[in-house]
Amino acid sequence: MNYKAVFNMLGKVIFLEGALMILPLIVALIYGEKDTYMSFVIPIVCLLALGLALGIKRPKNNMMLAKEGFAICGLAWILLSAFGCIPFVLSGMIPNYLDAFFETVSGFTTTGSTVLTTVEANPMGLLFWRSFTNWIGGMGVLTFFMAVVPQGEGQSMHLMRAEVPGPKAGKLVSKMTDAFRILYIIYFALTILDIVFLMFSGIGFYHSVVTAFATAGTGGFSVKDASIAGYNSPYVEYVSATFMMLFGINFNLYFFLFLRKFKAVLCDEELKVYFGVIISSIALIMINLMTTSEIGTEKAFRDSYFTVTTLVSSCGFVTADFEQWPVFSKAILLLLMFIGAMSGSTGGGIKITRVMLYFKEMVRDLKQMIRPRQVMSVRLNKKSVDSAILKGINTYLVIYIFIIMASILLVSVEGNSFETNFTAVFTCINNMGPGMDKVSATSNFAHLSPLTKIVLCFDMLAGRLEIYPIVLLLIPTTWKRH
Amino acid sequence: MNYKAVFNMLGKVIFLEGALMILPLIVALIYGEKDTYMSFVIPIVCLLALGLALGIKRPKNNMMLAKEGFAICGLAWILLSAFGCIPFVLSGMIPNYLDAFFETVSGFTTTGSTVLTTVEANPMGLLFWRSFTNWIGGMGVLTFFMAVVPQGEGQSMHLMRAEVPGPKAGKLVSKMTDAFRILYIIYFALTILDIVFLMFSGIGFYHSVVTAFATAGTGGFSVKDASIAGYNSPYVEYVSATFMMLFGINFNLYFFLFLRKFKAVLCDEELKVYFGVIISSIALIMINLMTTSEIGTEKAFRDSYFTVTTLVSSCGFVTADFEQWPVFSKAILLLLMFIGAMSGSTGGGIKITRVMLYFKEMVRDLKQMIRPRQVMSVRLNKKSVDSAILKGINTYLVIYIFIIMASILLVSVEGNSFETNFTAVFTCINNMGPGMDKVSATSNFAHLSPLTKIVLCFDMLAGRLEIYPIVLLLIPTTWKRH
Repeated sequence: MNYKAVFNMLGKVIFLEGALMILPLIVALIYGEKDTYMSFVIPIVCLLALGLALGIKRPKNNMMLAKEGFAICGLAWILLSAFGCIPFVLSGMIPNYLDAFFETVSGFTTTGSTVLTTVEANPMGLLFWRSFTNWIGGMGVLTFFMAVVPQGEGQSMHLMRAEVPGPKAGKLVSKMTDAFRILYIIYFALTILDIVFLMFSGIGFYHSVVTAFATAGTGGFSVKDASIAGYNSPYVEYVSATFMMLFGINFNLYFFLFLRKFKAVLCDEELKVYFGVIISSIALIMINLMTTSEIGTEKAFRDSYFTVTTLVSSCGFVTADFEQWPVFSKAILLLLMFIGAMSGSTGGGIKITRVMLYFKEMVRDLKQMIRPRQVMSVRLNKKSVDSAILKGINTYLVIYIFIIMASILLVSVEGNSFETNFTAVFTCINNMGPGMDKVSATSNFAHLSPLTKIVLCFDMLAGRLEIYPIVLLLIPTTWKRH
Repeated sequence: MNYKAVFNMLGKVIFLEGALMILPLIVALIYGEKDTYMSFVIPIVCLLALGLALGIKRPKNNMMLAKEGFAICGLAWILLSAFGCIPFVLSGMIPNYLDAFFETVSGFTTTGSTVLTTVEANPMGLLFWRSFTNWIGGMGVLTFFMAVVPQGEGQSMHLMRAEVPGPKAGKLVSKMTDAFRILYIIYFALTILDIVFLMFSGIGFYHSVVTAFATAGTGGFSVKDASIAGYNSPYVEYVSATFMMLFGINFNLYFFLFLRKFKAVLCDEELKVYFGVIISSIALIMINLMTTSEIGTEKAFRDSYFTVTTLVSSCGFVTADFEQWPVFSKAILLLLMFIGAMSGSTGGGIKITRVMLYFKEMVRDLKQMIRPRQVMSVRLNKKSVDSAILKGINTYLVIYIFIIMASILLVSVEGNSFETNFTAVFTCINNMGPGMDKVSATSNFAHLSPLTKIVLCFDMLAGRLEIYPIVLLLIPTTWKRH
């Protein structure tokens, strides 16, 4: 491990966080929330100073390999949360440090699980920062960092591989930094578009911005106690549902649209499956709702459209109380949480590509059993998928299941219901937001024990970083000098 | 598909079932249960006649490959259940055919989930047959068939691969038929030993035999309404718990003991993990029970010993009502259900070997990420594990999860609680027995809808046959002539 290079890079990331925190300070200044000024100023000064101290001197040996990439990525996300929660603690909004850390991890990882019992009464500046973490985390904090502070190609590659290790479409452009810039420009443009659409509803600029932040990052932190339902506006629901769906799409496809490669977009297998899953889920849930209750067609469509998109994109906004829905609908929703959005999007879950590859691999292997001598390959978008990628997604599933099981066991020590424990772990590792029973949308995560909160923080980070950067931090081999 | 060879083999298997059914008829004769004589005689005559018709003429082309092996295996288990349930229907013990089919699938697959609301009032001969299905299914019906009716080497190999496709220890002896004979002799001897131990409790010969049958097959069908708790005897509980644990051990190890290869047994990694899992689970549950309730040490030990062994072996006998236990203990129990017993035992679940290989593979792949160029292998019992085996267990996990998800979705149509649906599917695919909520040990599976019962039958068969033979029946490629 090249510790000097790791610390240097972490210094730069910390410095950037200090700079980003100036934005919520400005919001606090605009709204004249004098009590909260120092809650921002103190961490900003500390972050800038510490960032400068660590980051200014370029180490002689700047060599970075895979393990440095993973270590920087894992540590960066933990440090950003550890410092990012300071305003919440200093202002007294969330006095307990662990709670504030949980909230910030939940923000950056775009999970959206909250420890707040009430949201609305809090200062606008702090709530802005809370929603802003959703937006920053959405595209990946290191992606953001690399879009702003260009790095050498070798370093960028290892950092990117660490933060986005999943199966993904080919490289868009030859230079990494350009790729990150393009992704962030698309992300930025879509966010602006969402804000504009929300403005028409009359909920005002502030609410439009923070809602768009949480939608774009598919984080789901709302500044309303009742989440999106709090706006009492079907228009806001339709706009948010549509944008949640759009942010669940692989960003490479938007770039293709921009390049007028329409055919590549229309023929994309993952996109077809994504819309197939969404449309069939909405249809099944609508039928289920309309045959079991006295609900109107428009309301049934709106509720199922919103709930399906919020779960498939792992955003976690809430309008309808789906815990009261019939169990068949709930089973579909649980499946959607597990499947998640497209790879290369801001959404969570296992990701559509992986599920498709699992399915294709399964069919291939079953056919192979009957015809053992025939050579059969797994194909995606008409290209044969490399066996190393298949091996990778299989290991991913195994680790994913091990983490879920170990987490449920640890969380069970506290003695809550099985439904609480299972859905808490499941919602956190899939970066969803609310769970069921005692961690449902109508409740929160504040009452959980410190052990449970730490486990869930680990799960949120593991889920967001697609497991490896966080899990590797636990392995001694990572920390060896050579 | 060589249909003639498949039908021929199925005919022989059916004939054998007809012969086996004579045993419960004898029991019915001994107890003078005149009303049930014809319920046995009719199916016996039909089975022997049909079996003779199909099985007597050896087909010219006797060639069998993998797909014929899988098809015979899958169809044999379905047919045995489809015919095996006739006595229950004819006698009126389970008048509904689907219910009787469910009960018999549950018996042969050693699941032990029941549709009976009361067990004790039923005729002894029929209950004997019900427990006997557990015993026959325990070692595999084709293994049994091949131990009794020797086949050509090529045929045995494909049949054995179909019925026991999981990772297993090396071949014991050069000739397949000898191997099956040895396995059945060990199985028989252990069953006799169990009967002898149970006889000392004073529950009588009949109860000792049927209890030993259900223990040996790790099926868990009891002739008491309250399962083993119905005997009100700590001695019976200790004996049953111990034998459930013994039947969860790989039978190859008993053969090694017989050959005095003590070192091979003592050094077996899977055996160490098996006992490690059992001992640590008992310890954790005892601590959990004793700190949360006023239970005595002996009772806490007995309850946790019995419950851990019944779940890890997937037997499904019940003494303590573990649904009332603290959630931490329940989480451990759920994990045990998932892990299951050793490979090559009569138990169900994912199997210890697979879990070990998943874990070792995970650690290997994590280390590999940090040191991409180093060649690292996964080792079990000091031997490097072939990458084809690792690929196989990964696919297995993927299919296992797909089946669980699809099953939960289909079972949810009925509208029971999520806990009922999830545990029903989970208990059936792991061949456990009782689930929770509406399918708990104090309830039964009778009230479920026909669709749910069919799905659960599929899950029980898929779980018992380690997925492939049943799933392959659904793939058109299997049925093509060439």
